[in-house]
Amino acid sequence: MNIAVLGTGSVGSTIGSKLIELGHNVMMGSRTANNEKAIAWVGKQADKAATGTFADAASFGQIIINCTAGTATMEVLKLAGETNIAGKVLIDISNPLDFSKGFPPSLSSVNTHSLAEEIQKTFPTVEVVKALNTMWAGLMVNPSLINSGDHSTFICGNDPEAKSITTQLLKSFGWDEKNILDLGDISKARGLEMYLPLWLSIYGATKSGAFNIKIVS
Amino acid sequence: MNIAVLGTGSVGSTIGSKLIELGHNVMMGSRTANNEKAIAWVGKQADKAATGTFADAASFGQIIINCTAGTATMEVLKLAGETNIAGKVLIDISNPLDFSKGFPPSLSSVNTHSLAEEIQKTFPTVEVVKALNTMWAGLMVNPSLINSGDHSTFICGNDPEAKSITTQLLKSFGWDEKNILDLGDISKARGLEMYLPLWLSIYGATKSGAFNIKIVS
Repeated sequence: MNIAVLGTGSVGSTIGSKLIELGHNVMMGSRTANNEKAIAWVGKQADKAATGTFADAASFGQIIINCTAGTATMEVLKLAGETNIAGKVLIDISNPLDFSKGFPPSLSSVNTHSLAEEIQKTFPTVEVVKALNTMWAGLMVNPSLINSGDHSTFICGNDPEAKSITTQLLKSFGWDEKNILDLGDISKARGLEMYLPLWLSIYGATKSGAFNIKIVS
Repeated sequence: MNIAVLGTGSVGSTIGSKLIELGHNVMMGSRTANNEKAIAWVGKQADKAATGTFADAASFGQIIINCTAGTATMEVLKLAGETNIAGKVLIDISNPLDFSKGFPPSLSSVNTHSLAEEIQKTFPTVEVVKALNTMWAGLMVNPSLINSGDHSTFICGNDPEAKSITTQLLKSFGWDEKNILDLGDISKARGLEMYLPLWLSIYGATKSGAFNIKIVS
């Protein structure tokens, strides 16, 4: 499948490399077609990797994965172009963390809003699914790194088919279907994004990002 | 020990009854000394239970446990009286859930603020510890109900001695010390309170409140 990865940070490069390992063709999108980090990422891959502008990548991808910083996401999606993302599944991994006042960050969308809802409202034909934003990038594509892969991940979105496609992708990353919890419609992204301050506190207390939560009952 | 439980809801009555079972003397505080729910709660207990106003209870307790609705907490603590709570450990279990616009609730303190911080700021001599707000009341005092008791609970607060007292209390409730994670100072209550929307979403998806999260690494 042709997949667009928007963003050149650790999440984008980790997700992109995993997708290539799984046999997909990936274009990493950034503000400029000659972004150094994107070119370095392509250099490490087989012929299945490419780089381009956000619009190039969005046009290329049958699925779009948003790995940009949450505070930049809305601008990035406008640069990607409404016609290039229309009707496509957009998996939103971003977190609206605002570091402008230092650490810890606050959330730029919060409480009665979420970034994923804002994306869905701004681009109503896009099928937005929130996923994977609740953990360190290394675990997203390699859950077996901890606790034999037995821990929880969440999805939410308005379109059942888009959530099914996302679930298949997560399973291909190594997630056991029993650990993928569908929380419901896209408004459930509020809880997923508002979990980040607790994630940051746990990270601060344990000095390691290689942890996740497992729902037990 | 003499302990004040502020609030007559399911959290207050559950915590109060457990404390009595453990041999403590408990006064349940409410707005009026003759609150029907408080009297009914006392009626079920041995001679170690009493009821009174918030001020009566706060004066009685060597430790204060706030089990009120978060949106009422600041008013309740003013009714309890600054002199009655001064210098004492206050364990804050409340969540600032605002249901005034229906379900799901929003948070009345959020992002750059938390209710626990507001309590600490308003009553600087009180030793505030946030604890137990991240789960259903039944699990707070009986963690072995699920997963053989192996799941996570969190504390935060500015005073190490107050956190040590809270940890001892949690251990007496059945919590294994390895599952009690100290997140740091009282500002970490932001993450603990902002977890509630995710808790509510998981509750909605699984149709049961008898779950918790376990940190795995």
